[in-house]
Amino acid sequence: SRSIRLAVIPGDGIGQEVVAQGLKVLSAALPQDVKLETRSYDLGAQRWHATGDTLPDAELESLKDHDAILLGAIGDPSVPSGVLERGLLLKLRFAFDHYVNLRPSKLFPNTPTPLAGRPDIDFVVVREGTEGPYVGNGGSMRTGTPDEVATEVSLNTAHGVERVVRDAYQRAAARPRKKLTLVHKNNVLVHAGHLWKNTFDRVGQEYPEVTTDYLHVDAATIFFVTQPERFDVIVTDNLFGDILTDLAAAVTGGIGLAASGNINPSGAFPSMFEPVHGSAPDIAGTGKADPTATVLSVALLLSHLGHGDEAARIEAAVASDLAERDAAGPRTTDEIGDALAARVSG
Amino acid sequence: SRSIRLAVIPGDGIGQEVVAQGLKVLSAALPQDVKLETRSYDLGAQRWHATGDTLPDAELESLKDHDAILLGAIGDPSVPSGVLERGLLLKLRFAFDHYVNLRPSKLFPNTPTPLAGRPDIDFVVVREGTEGPYVGNGGSMRTGTPDEVATEVSLNTAHGVERVVRDAYQRAAARPRKKLTLVHKNNVLVHAGHLWKNTFDRVGQEYPEVTTDYLHVDAATIFFVTQPERFDVIVTDNLFGDILTDLAAAVTGGIGLAASGNINPSGAFPSMFEPVHGSAPDIAGTGKADPTATVLSVALLLSHLGHGDEAARIEAAVASDLAERDAAGPRTTDEIGDALAARVSG
Ligand SMILES: CC(C)[C@H](C(=O)O)[C@@H](O)C(=O)O
Ligand SMILES: CC(C)[C@H](C(=O)O)[C@@H](O)C(=O)O
Repeated sequence: SRSIRLAVIPGDGIGQEVVAQGLKVLSAALPQDVKLETRSYDLGAQRWHATGDTLPDAELESLKDHDAILLGAIGDPSVPSGVLERGLLLKLRFAFDHYVNLRPSKLFPNTPTPLAGRPDIDFVVVREGTEGPYVGNGGSMRTGTPDEVATEVSLNTAHGVERVVRDAYQRAAARPRKKLTLVHKNNVLVHAGHLWKNTFDRVGQEYPEVTTDYLHVDAATIFFVTQPERFDVIVTDNLFGDILTDLAAAVTGGIGLAASGNINPSGAFPSMFEPVHGSAPDIAGTGKADPTATVLSVALLLSHLGHGDEAARIEAAVASDLAERDAAGPRTTDEIGDALAARVSG
Repeated sequence: SRSIRLAVIPGDGIGQEVVAQGLKVLSAALPQDVKLETRSYDLGAQRWHATGDTLPDAELESLKDHDAILLGAIGDPSVPSGVLERGLLLKLRFAFDHYVNLRPSKLFPNTPTPLAGRPDIDFVVVREGTEGPYVGNGGSMRTGTPDEVATEVSLNTAHGVERVVRDAYQRAAARPRKKLTLVHKNNVLVHAGHLWKNTFDRVGQEYPEVTTDYLHVDAATIFFVTQPERFDVIVTDNLFGDILTDLAAAVTGGIGLAASGNINPSGAFPSMFEPVHGSAPDIAGTGKADPTATVLSVALLLSHLGHGDEAARIEAAVASDLAERDAAGPRTTDEIGDALAARVSG
């Protein structure tokens, strides 16, 4: 498309700072003839404190009228845990049916990793984004008394599992190694587990070229640190995906580099791109935030919108920037953004 | 006590082999005047194939009549996923109210770790053992059709959370660093999360000497690989504990070394000790299984039964065995057991 209507939700803490760099690099990457229209939404902790709103209906409606959403980070210690997560971030993922939560993990050369021996890491996690324990179907009774009972219900549907599993097979089939690993805990969560495993096996018959594997989530964490090179594409439940992708980020340079896309493949709603990291209030305003995760999220955004060449240019810029980091010395958020934008346009 | 009535469930795969070494070291560690009576239970995959039984009532009753249980490993690919886990292992944990699932993680000198820089790791995870997503409260409807819905319910009670949180505070208070970290996901699983966090904060007032911390489970996995030295005692939910303790094992020498105790602190039922690893059918019978995790589980068992000196002797034996592993060259399961028994008696 020759124009991009982008909704921007900078959010809280370092969200503001990293989104500014993401937009800088996006502008540098876009061909002259692609018009970029951005509209910024004031959502997050400040707005909640001022008005009590997390995501009013009018803004949810207006967000729909965009090609994509770029989100910085949500959350602040001054807001009770869960209010902004459920009321804004998860509300968007659910309202816009972002059932593919895409999280690539790649260990770039020269990037620090806590793993000895620097294994070759290049996999992508396809995390289900609209079901599982994230549905908000829980409650409590006799709350605050010694007889309290609190529940959390994981809801899983054939519809929801099949579409994300199919998406993961397609992604695996399109990659050189063509390998897909299902991660669940089907020896304990037997009902959800059977639905996932049966769907995985059945859909797999349509992709005979894809090699498959199954791992329990606990065992998967072991392989993330002892043998991460065994993974190509991973498909998993919403909560397991949340846990695994933070661990994946940790072994591939840290959450300062981890990008994600909340994708609605049908295009019925705008997809949303965001760094995996949070709002990091401890370093907000200090210029210490690394905008690279947001910049890589912008690459996912471009690729989703069909601008594959521009996405590749951004990824290459990040790769060479990372390769020369030691020489560059310490840089501010803004300086890293400038350097990436310069590489992308240059 | 001057006699120990021990129930032994070798189970499947390498379970048989490692339990034999555990018993060898136990005998070597016990003072002459402590009588050890063992009774072995034929439970696991073979039994299930032969009779369809996982854990008949009569055997459950008879197990009660012991001071402790030593379990090897449960599970075989020939048995549908979940049958033995739910019908035997989890049935025992629930029936005997093993609400403290104790899993120490220590990086011994000279032990391999995938982490660069060999951080100083010495923490213990107190995993809740009788609630959460493990309760088996799930189901499915329209099963096997495109309209299937499958649920898994996490049940959490004030009673269940408070007793394990209190146990964790006591353990933290008894350790030099006196630090307790609660791990949950209270920004998403808000109902269970509030129960855990409120209980954690309230009970903490009784332990002013304990420093506390809270981490979301996803963030906790990051610190397990980037800064594991920050942890002293961790208390967490059944499922998060399952995931975290495999990761903890991976960074402290592998699951070949990870011990666990399923403890009923009231003593109303026998506590059960088992290596964290599974039945590893791929190496069963080859003599390649490392019995160290089982031997360390025997140390936990002794310590639970009040034989603290003998437990310490076993731990010291393991530490020196590990320190000299390179020189020892490759050894069989049996040879490692012999070496440990010799160090313990010597
Ligand atoms: C902030 C939180 C609700 C969110 C999640 O759990 O999905 C975050 O951890 C993530 O991974 O995007
Ligand atoms: C075998 C399985 C049921 C068990 C669990 O999930 O608790 C195991 O992974 C463990 O950690 O002891």
